[in-house]
Amino acid sequence: MKTINSTPKQDNFRMPGEFEPHAGCWMLWPQRPDVWRNGGKPAQHAFVEVATAISQFEPVTMGVSTDQFIHARELLPDSVRVVELTCNDSWVRDCGPTFVVNDVGEIRGVDWKFNAWGGLLSGAYFPWDQDDLIAHKILQIERVARYDAPLILEGGSIHVDGEGTLITTEQCLLNPNRNPELSRSDIETHLRNYLNIETIIWLTEGVYKDETDGHVDNLCCFIRPGVVALTWTDNESDPQHAVSKMAYQQLSEAVDAKGRRLEIHKLHQPEPLYITEGEGAGIDMLPTSSLRQEDKRLAGSYVNFYIANGGVVMPVFNDPHDKPAFETLQQLFPNRRIVTVPGREILLGGGNVHCITQQQPATAQL
Amino acid sequence: MKTINSTPKQDNFRMPGEFEPHAGCWMLWPQRPDVWRNGGKPAQHAFVEVATAISQFEPVTMGVSTDQFIHARELLPDSVRVVELTCNDSWVRDCGPTFVVNDVGEIRGVDWKFNAWGGLLSGAYFPWDQDDLIAHKILQIERVARYDAPLILEGGSIHVDGEGTLITTEQCLLNPNRNPELSRSDIETHLRNYLNIETIIWLTEGVYKDETDGHVDNLCCFIRPGVVALTWTDNESDPQHAVSKMAYQQLSEAVDAKGRRLEIHKLHQPEPLYITEGEGAGIDMLPTSSLRQEDKRLAGSYVNFYIANGGVVMPVFNDPHDKPAFETLQQLFPNRRIVTVPGREILLGGGNVHCITQQQPATAQL
Repeated sequence: MKTINSTPKQDNFRMPGEFEPHAGCWMLWPQRPDVWRNGGKPAQHAFVEVATAISQFEPVTMGVSTDQFIHARELLPDSVRVVELTCNDSWVRDCGPTFVVNDVGEIRGVDWKFNAWGGLLSGAYFPWDQDDLIAHKILQIERVARYDAPLILEGGSIHVDGEGTLITTEQCLLNPNRNPELSRSDIETHLRNYLNIETIIWLTEGVYKDETDGHVDNLCCFIRPGVVALTWTDNESDPQHAVSKMAYQQLSEAVDAKGRRLEIHKLHQPEPLYITEGEGAGIDMLPTSSLRQEDKRLAGSYVNFYIANGGVVMPVFNDPHDKPAFETLQQLFPNRRIVTVPGREILLGGGNVHCITQQQPATAQL
Repeated sequence: MKTINSTPKQDNFRMPGEFEPHAGCWMLWPQRPDVWRNGGKPAQHAFVEVATAISQFEPVTMGVSTDQFIHARELLPDSVRVVELTCNDSWVRDCGPTFVVNDVGEIRGVDWKFNAWGGLLSGAYFPWDQDDLIAHKILQIERVARYDAPLILEGGSIHVDGEGTLITTEQCLLNPNRNPELSRSDIETHLRNYLNIETIIWLTEGVYKDETDGHVDNLCCFIRPGVVALTWTDNESDPQHAVSKMAYQQLSEAVDAKGRRLEIHKLHQPEPLYITEGEGAGIDMLPTSSLRQEDKRLAGSYVNFYIANGGVVMPVFNDPHDKPAFETLQQLFPNRRIVTVPGREILLGGGNVHCITQQQPATAQL
């Protein structure tokens, strides 16, 4: 339960790839009515589906703000642990800890600073004080020692291969709304120190209209070391085409920490998705929250899946591309069962399955 | 994380004695200004002393309401785990779970109903909704299955020897402000079913001026099976004398579940303690909280100690009886180290060390 003043690099801890074995998965219960339509009720049911799907593969813990504890406990299956974790919103990928492990089975957690994807400049809401405590609280519950990292960073803005390589985007990590006082080189140093990685693959930008300023986890992810999936569209008139094409080129030119060229698999995106008038009308419009216009394009992507022990939980959108995406993932993960969950309701809130989950790696002790 | 519809008796689970091995100890952070003087700040320091003392012997977890998480984490030693557990007040002995174990190393928890020591009739505050969730939340954090007991009961109103015997008081358990619809026989049946005990020793009443309606844990407790400690005064003009004398007689006449007569050890109480004008002035006076008059007698007792793994943490009052009480406890617990903590600040809030702690028994798996 200690906060440690050194860094994971100094202590020989590293962030494992998501495809490495997990002790379990963390989630946070959605409820804020200025993000989730209809008082968060449809989203709560969508989160229950995700938690239920993941709990087939590994233990799931749902963090819940004080006033929703009983309701969440009632809705979730018995196998899901429900703990009180007051939050401003429900994106544990971004405000949760990044767990790091060492070679003798110990685990620690990196607690990044969080400013709701842009702070007072362009953050999604104010305040974000409770979100910023989530990592610390999770580490306390798990009796895991904590590194207090001096960097504003969300878990969704990075992916690692567990073997020294990190992928991220310039649009997010170099955005002046995150760490304006730090240079690219400063940020790279922090990533190296707190994740114990050697090689950083910088992509230019994330998925078109992604509200996170281009989190990599909606664009591209590691299937395993040396192999990545990239969201794609063949439609050259779609602004996403240029984004994916540039990312493809950058990934093609990259060499990972082990000196490998990357094998890149395209996951064709769903047809462009838009929030409907009815959906938008269900969201509280407040001066402190970002406006959700009707007909706004949503950043739908199949890459926003969660890798569990022996499984993958992927969002689907009742779209013709659902089936090919499912089949591609099943080929890419021959030893895992691919489970689909409805992704639209989560997408309306601004993310998807990967954004609302955070893996806790397994250790030798578990 | 399941709620079980049977009873511990049906499933062969029993409540262990407090002197049996622990996995750890739970506490709740004090903060309500209508119970704790000066915004709870002196009490918080007193609780830190108790947590620090117990953590020498076993792991301590401090539950904290949302707004005090950072402050509690700052004040407590690293070895104490701090978790979010929103509460109305800080008496985990009374609102926490009663853990039960079986012979093959499994643990479950009994979640009693809680009404703040008397509900709308004469409870200490309103509402008590968050206190009533504490047991459930603790069991969720620990991934321990839960029995939902249909009885209003506080942990401080019972003591067991772990071998089939329970001691309680009529003043509390038969009080119409707890379970007015249940007869003595109904209540006995619930105790037998949910604690798996056979013999109930009924004492008439608890310590003079105890605000809990006579919780047994301030009056009398098991040192080990067959041996009890009883708070005492030789001063016949003190109303406590008649209370202790009657309890002594009832304990003398009792036969425990194993057919033993009890060995009774007197712990002479501190000299009568009264809240001062200055102390009383520091407490918010609200219509919904019980009034603390200046010069009110406090229910000070050395029996209100906590038995930890290899230790005992006892309250002292800067009183001539502190030393004899310490020496008696050291004789009664020859294999445990007796540690003293200042008890006055906790007593001002209405209880003492035992009232603010709840043991979690060890299991074979731990």
